[in-house]
Amino acid sequence: MIKYPDGRKSADAVKKETSFSHRGMNLEDDINHTNQYYLDTGKAVVYKKPTPITIVNVDYRSRQTAKITEAYFQIPSTTDYNGVYRGFYLDFEAKETHSRTAFPLSSIHAHQLNHLKRVIEQKGIAFLLVRFTQYDETFFVLAADFLDEISHSERKSVRYEWFREHGYLIPYNYVVRIDYLHVIDSLMNGGRL
Amino acid sequence: MIKYPDGRKSADAVKKETSFSHRGMNLEDDINHTNQYYLDTGKAVVYKKPTPITIVNVDYRSRQTAKITEAYFQIPSTTDYNGVYRGFYLDFEAKETHSRTAFPLSSIHAHQLNHLKRVIEQKGIAFLLVRFTQYDETFFVLAADFLDEISHSERKSVRYEWFREHGYLIPYNYVVRIDYLHVIDSLMNGGRL
Repeated sequence: MIKYPDGRKSADAVKKETSFSHRGMNLEDDINHTNQYYLDTGKAVVYKKPTPITIVNVDYRSRQTAKITEAYFQIPSTTDYNGVYRGFYLDFEAKETHSRTAFPLSSIHAHQLNHLKRVIEQKGIAFLLVRFTQYDETFFVLAADFLDEISHSERKSVRYEWFREHGYLIPYNYVVRIDYLHVIDSLMNGGRL
Repeated sequence: MIKYPDGRKSADAVKKETSFSHRGMNLEDDINHTNQYYLDTGKAVVYKKPTPITIVNVDYRSRQTAKITEAYFQIPSTTDYNGVYRGFYLDFEAKETHSRTAFPLSSIHAHQLNHLKRVIEQKGIAFLLVRFTQYDETFFVLAADFLDEISHSERKSVRYEWFREHGYLIPYNYVVRIDYLHVIDSLMNGGRL
């Protein structure tokens, strides 16, 4: 059974819509588009952090366009997205999986899970957006629920069914592609946040 | 007259201490050190964002150490630091100036000022940390005060005296080098935040 933030129980109508609506879009694009919408409408200020890199060499020959000629990707110590919504601190990671059965834990770094724990301790709103591309379904999952699940399991992945039970399916929408604030509003109204 | 967050009025004692205490340290190092202290003691979760760059070419010959061979610095659209403190969203920019008389506005991008405005609208705690290196003084300034000042002035800089009047001098401390949370606590207790 899929939990909808507004209490609907059946996913069929929405699934049919979403499965045709945005094939080929990736989750990062959808979230950036959504964040831009939130920014433009004054709803929230949320950004993706730049990719952390270690810069080794920079060519300063032309000062206005300093060219980085040697750099390496770092393992991120935090999540990719954070920001502020009506005074609340938001922090989340977004991941896609092509699996039909489970979300592999290898796709999230231990650092990032620790970071989410710390954010919860600081009373921030910490969550994950996980997309199962084969079903074209994007779930909002509270980091607290996710961390609780993986602490009680030996598995190296979290089953798709778990997301259907404990996550909140975000219906795709043309204007606000991944309206995660709608889920947050509902959780606040329902006393879960 | 320098405003201390705890109400002290004279800066002399502290100034003498600070001016000998950490010559040669730069503001970024001091803030990173402070943020690490906050993180280790569970006081707050605040990070510097990675430098935004545009990656043009990556050499994937060795998959484990993909090497970026061409990239360029981007103009940042947000501030350098953000995070969460007891549920509050913090967002700030840190700048040093070598001037004895004024802080040049050219050292902050228009994008960053707009970002601070938006953070204030979303009820985040937005501020600047400005260091006058010649005096070895670091001021905490509420972004709202700073934006108000520059909107009422034609000048391309903000005078040092303005910081002494409207900013909060942060005494240097060996354990917590730039204890900006102490200022925030005081402002909260005083009803200014």
